[in-house]
Amino acid sequence: MANITKKVSWSSRADESGAAGEGTPLLNGSEQPRHSRQPSEGGSLCQIGRLSTVDLEEEITSDEESQRGRPKEIPHNEKLLSLKYESLDYDNIENQLFLEEERKMSYMGFRCLEISRWVVCGLIGFLTGLIACFIDIVVEQLAGIKYQVVKENIEKFTEVGGLSISLLLWAVLNSAIVMLGAIIVAFFEPIAAGSGIPQIKCYLNGIKIPRVVRLKEGPMIHSGAVVAAGVSQGRSTSLKRDFKIFEYFRRDTEKRDFVSAGAAAGVSAAFGAPVGGVLFSLEEGASFWNQMLTWRIFFASMISTFTLNFFLSIYHNKPGELSNPGLINFGRFQGDSVAYNLYEIPLFIAMGAIGGLLGALFNVLNYWLTIFRIRYVHRPCLQVMEAMLVAAVTATVSFTMIYFSNDCQPLGPEHTEEYPLQLFCADGEYNSMATAFFNTPERSVRSLFHNQPGTYNPLTLGLFTLTYFFLACWTYGLAVSAGVFIPSLLIGAAWGRLCGILLATITPDGSVSVIWADPGKYALIGAAAQLGGIVRMTLSLTVIMVEATGNVTYGLPIMLVLMTAKIVGDYFVEGLYDIHIKLQSVPFLHWEAPATSHWLTAREVMSSPVTCLNRIEKVGTIVDTLSNTSTNHNGFPVVVKVSGSDEPPKLCGLILRSQLIVLLKHKVFVELARSRLTQRKLQLKDFRDAYPRFPPIQSIHVSQDERECMMDLTEFMNATPYTVPQETSLPRVFKLFRALGLRHLVVVDDENRVVGLVTRKDLARYHLGKHGLEELQLAQT
Amino acid sequence: MANITKKVSWSSRADESGAAGEGTPLLNGSEQPRHSRQPSEGGSLCQIGRLSTVDLEEEITSDEESQRGRPKEIPHNEKLLSLKYESLDYDNIENQLFLEEERKMSYMGFRCLEISRWVVCGLIGFLTGLIACFIDIVVEQLAGIKYQVVKENIEKFTEVGGLSISLLLWAVLNSAIVMLGAIIVAFFEPIAAGSGIPQIKCYLNGIKIPRVVRLKEGPMIHSGAVVAAGVSQGRSTSLKRDFKIFEYFRRDTEKRDFVSAGAAAGVSAAFGAPVGGVLFSLEEGASFWNQMLTWRIFFASMISTFTLNFFLSIYHNKPGELSNPGLINFGRFQGDSVAYNLYEIPLFIAMGAIGGLLGALFNVLNYWLTIFRIRYVHRPCLQVMEAMLVAAVTATVSFTMIYFSNDCQPLGPEHTEEYPLQLFCADGEYNSMATAFFNTPERSVRSLFHNQPGTYNPLTLGLFTLTYFFLACWTYGLAVSAGVFIPSLLIGAAWGRLCGILLATITPDGSVSVIWADPGKYALIGAAAQLGGIVRMTLSLTVIMVEATGNVTYGLPIMLVLMTAKIVGDYFVEGLYDIHIKLQSVPFLHWEAPATSHWLTAREVMSSPVTCLNRIEKVGTIVDTLSNTSTNHNGFPVVVKVSGSDEPPKLCGLILRSQLIVLLKHKVFVELARSRLTQRKLQLKDFRDAYPRFPPIQSIHVSQDERECMMDLTEFMNATPYTVPQETSLPRVFKLFRALGLRHLVVVDDENRVVGLVTRKDLARYHLGKHGLEELQLAQT
Repeated sequence: MANITKKVSWSSRADESGAAGEGTPLLNGSEQPRHSRQPSEGGSLCQIGRLSTVDLEEEITSDEESQRGRPKEIPHNEKLLSLKYESLDYDNIENQLFLEEERKMSYMGFRCLEISRWVVCGLIGFLTGLIACFIDIVVEQLAGIKYQVVKENIEKFTEVGGLSISLLLWAVLNSAIVMLGAIIVAFFEPIAAGSGIPQIKCYLNGIKIPRVVRLKEGPMIHSGAVVAAGVSQGRSTSLKRDFKIFEYFRRDTEKRDFVSAGAAAGVSAAFGAPVGGVLFSLEEGASFWNQMLTWRIFFASMISTFTLNFFLSIYHNKPGELSNPGLINFGRFQGDSVAYNLYEIPLFIAMGAIGGLLGALFNVLNYWLTIFRIRYVHRPCLQVMEAMLVAAVTATVSFTMIYFSNDCQPLGPEHTEEYPLQLFCADGEYNSMATAFFNTPERSVRSLFHNQPGTYNPLTLGLFTLTYFFLACWTYGLAVSAGVFIPSLLIGAAWGRLCGILLATITPDGSVSVIWADPGKYALIGAAAQLGGIVRMTLSLTVIMVEATGNVTYGLPIMLVLMTAKIVGDYFVEGLYDIHIKLQSVPFLHWEAPATSHWLTAREVMSSPVTCLNRIEKVGTIVDTLSNTSTNHNGFPVVVKVSGSDEPPKLCGLILRSQLIVLLKHKVFVELARSRLTQRKLQLKDFRDAYPRFPPIQSIHVSQDERECMMDLTEFMNATPYTVPQETSLPRVFKLFRALGLRHLVVVDDENRVVGLVTRKDLARYHLGKHGLEELQLAQT
Repeated sequence: MANITKKVSWSSRADESGAAGEGTPLLNGSEQPRHSRQPSEGGSLCQIGRLSTVDLEEEITSDEESQRGRPKEIPHNEKLLSLKYESLDYDNIENQLFLEEERKMSYMGFRCLEISRWVVCGLIGFLTGLIACFIDIVVEQLAGIKYQVVKENIEKFTEVGGLSISLLLWAVLNSAIVMLGAIIVAFFEPIAAGSGIPQIKCYLNGIKIPRVVRLKEGPMIHSGAVVAAGVSQGRSTSLKRDFKIFEYFRRDTEKRDFVSAGAAAGVSAAFGAPVGGVLFSLEEGASFWNQMLTWRIFFASMISTFTLNFFLSIYHNKPGELSNPGLINFGRFQGDSVAYNLYEIPLFIAMGAIGGLLGALFNVLNYWLTIFRIRYVHRPCLQVMEAMLVAAVTATVSFTMIYFSNDCQPLGPEHTEEYPLQLFCADGEYNSMATAFFNTPERSVRSLFHNQPGTYNPLTLGLFTLTYFFLACWTYGLAVSAGVFIPSLLIGAAWGRLCGILLATITPDGSVSVIWADPGKYALIGAAAQLGGIVRMTLSLTVIMVEATGNVTYGLPIMLVLMTAKIVGDYFVEGLYDIHIKLQSVPFLHWEAPATSHWLTAREVMSSPVTCLNRIEKVGTIVDTLSNTSTNHNGFPVVVKVSGSDEPPKLCGLILRSQLIVLLKHKVFVELARSRLTQRKLQLKDFRDAYPRFPPIQSIHVSQDERECMMDLTEFMNATPYTVPQETSLPRVFKLFRALGLRHLVVVDDENRVVGLVTRKDLARYHLGKHGLEELQLAQT
């Protein structure tokens, strides 16, 4: 076998924990002088923390570390980049084992794999649809019971007097339900908090959020992703079952694809929007557009909507009626009364601007609230109490609003209201404010969209918007599984309808009255504007709205509104999901490198020096490297020394921590004493069985004798990692990294020697702030 | 300056014309022995032409050449890969000039660029919409005149007798119009033939189809792309105008993005399907999904539909009515009668299968026809005559069908028919066959979708399907600008309606009669099935159909139908566009490398040896290299020798033929005699002005003195080209190449020395045939 070279170990800050390089010998340190950079004119605009230190040469590492790692005073979280998040590997690890397996596989084998991918996607769609159906029925039943009980109670006490008891009942009921949810979330699964969309967004971006796709409850998009992760792996760690199927799919690449499909299926089930679901997955997740993958995602979405519709049609005793849309049904917009005209376009755009403003306000308020929560409300019991408080306050405010409202409307013959509250209205009339508050939000949206003109008076709508706005803002980010979609739509629909009514009032009744007459149209536009202003999605949201309303005609106005809302909103603050991602210091990679980053090169961006391993390495060294808690690396370039030459070793591969762990666990050692290879033959299966939760190095016992053995990494390393020269500009490095979904990118010099390693954190660090290019600090939070 | 090393030139077959390596000295040839490959078990399934020769070592190159290059007998075109097509460069050429410009640009500069991108996209959408509007009105007017004249003539001669004169009139009118179009196409712009979709598909894939985006007439998708290419460059070579704006966009990367937007705007205008347009562009073109780009594409689509609707509403005297769909208006599907039920799903799937079968038949027939045309109908005058013949035959067949049809229908009070032909029908009745034939295809589709049940009798529909099928098949590929979309829809709608009628007949009248009663629903499904069976698009086509019919409900059935049609059709033959792309021997890159290609590595795939240039190179050498017509390379690795060492030179950059041409043209020489640098300073502007039609090397005069000068390439070469090691597997190389839209990928050894070059042709060569992996031959056709 090849000669066994002296161990070469370069310390690194690739995935470091602050103080890198301690105690490890620095070899070839002088081979990689940090070239002093000449900041160009363009660069003068930018303020980067490292600029001042970058011209110093030798002492740079320790200087930087003290400046960068673990700062004493934690600044605002959004200026930090947490080191606790690992990346996913969307690049296939093409080692010899993998290539052998692929080469052994026949054409039919690949066909079968392809078919099983479709089957898995079908299953994902089916199960997601089923879950959606289950959630829908349970929510409907629970809400039905709740509102029925409260309604009866209110009716009882309206005559007798003493409505405070009804209020109490409502508040207690609300709090009790919320408490249940909050306890589960706060104590058992903190990751289930919120809508799950930021988490899925991060996962699809390539960040390993711990437990993000573990089995648990959650809103639809998240549910879809969880189902996908479970089904595609053919096992569930939470349920401790392994069905021994789909073992081929046990790697990040395949799993990500299925999770995309699951998320799409979730959106599809939630809004009855299969195309919107696909676009959501693509907009939020995918980097490399793959036609076959997109079709599979579309298939999962379609099956999901279909399953939901099928089972709901049975539940509603109309079996086979498949034309219904999804879970959140806004009702169809049909007929000529809802057609729009050219002169309404400016009005729509103005509403989009309002939506952008209100959305920005919402986001800013929620941002402050979240900062407050991070600082002071981080204990589980406090979180539960806050959630209960919000529930009680919501009930109280709603009740108060209903109580003081004098907006009585005649109870129409169609009886569209589920729980009409009479209160102090005359017989045959009901309280219109109660329609908005005393109802599931989804129904409220529908009634705002479709009820006849005149159902609401402007004051009711205004008050409702105001109170609901602040309540929703307070609610988002609580330790419960709750999204922002429906509340945003509701707020927007309310003020949108208000706009419609006001517009109809201020214009003289004339030729245009037919078109003005429908405030539902404006409610739709308002809902789109508000939601767009908060979450800042455009393409997928347009399609979702179009599909959920069942009307293609509104495509253009909705798009214009969403774009306006985004432009106006972006002027002030980022989208809600992005804010929350930033606040968690997640190393999120955007679509492109910051525009003004062309003057940065791989040399400045990379982490260096790097801990490298020899192709045939001493077991003791490997164990020590992995055990080094100060440098918690996950990938190691493998180098080889040219035999009989003094030259520094050259790059020959890349190996992951997880692979080394499996090798150590299976004791794949070469005993030098016997001078022959007794290395145990490992299979890909051994790696797949350990995926995705590889044991920590501490759990693996290696004896002193074994430490003296050697390990041959040739078979297991990825022999052809992607590399870039040191002079490569940041945008170019970024593009390669992002387009291929890499985890480690090796930076080499002219002689193919390792000089650095680029990881996700090195790239995510740079972002475009208000004052040009800014650099985030890395922290161990 | 750096020492000037001896010229190193390796001959190459990168973009060769058969006999490579002639006369060029082979340096370092022995440095790159072709390693004998061990075909694994997986490989035994595959049959690759080179297998037999690949184990020979030294003589391999010449052996291969004689076997591969310019074969005596030209096999079927689809087994060839033409060398005449060049690739586009979607990777930014990051040379010093480019980086300097980017670094100089301020944040505001990038903002302005971004805004101008949006402005350009808006313009593209607006102009495409305007063109669509113009086409619509002209076609309507022309068809109106034609049908009016023929109708009056027929009515005159029906009573008198002598309808043969009417037939003659119709045939002559048809032929005359077609002749005009065919002459323009055949003699002036051969690329305008067909629907333009295959061409745009190739362009977006990264293949330079000569003159594909030059100013000329063409169907909508193509028109959009042409508009985009014109507007985004701020000039038109055809019109010889340069507005000196948007100079930044004068490179392949930016132009491609705008052409994507144009294609989407075209689809959007044609079908009133903005989302469908975006998906079309993505499905057919993009590789790297970029959110901002997608939004811009969506914006262009939206503006396009909007413009079209706005101007058409004025034209139709209903100004401001914007709810109309696009150019090809299938009419809305509304009301309960068109709802579908669970038990109809299997029927839809069966219709999808029929569509797949008929589509495959269509494609096979058209394939044979195209082969015939390539062999025998390649002279322009023959092409014009064939087009006229088809026009005349179409008129004759249509007339005969109408003449012998006895399907008289009462003329309803709604008077939905534009040109009702009475012929031998009783007064107050009209010939139903004439509705299908004697009408623009678009109107025929609409009447098949929406006319009352009973409008057509089954025999009429059957005969119509049969004749129209063969006529459409004959028409596609003629030397006229005509697509396959509408004819396919028409054929499908006809047999779909037939299916609906038959289904209604064989089931007893009972509870289900309401749903069976609408054959229009089946016409829609049939249309989708037929179109899907022919073109094999799924995602974008589903969305286009949904948007064009204005009904979201049919999403799932249409998708199921399209998927079935694709699966069934793919079993027999490829999609029509792919067939035509293959017949033109275009090096088209699919989404992924063939599944069973893991046993091929860069070493086997790459072209080698490669012609390299020194960083400081003699002008004479450069001129000779570029002038070498036998090796018509477009990209050259630049190498540098380590000073005072015997080692072979190392890779330091990559330069394109087009850049060298500009350098030569501007005489950017260093005169060694004066021993100082007098190299003229070139700007990026000089390269942009020459883009995209760089002069040939023959047009540049270099004197004998100048030949002795040197040229310093340092500033102009891309200093950080992407590289891969020799052992990289084909799928890995493919992924890198495809995801980043590369044109040249340098293969290096452990020491960073150039050993080969991978170009588009090297990758497109491998494809999965019926019997496993197959290799296409390269030819100079």
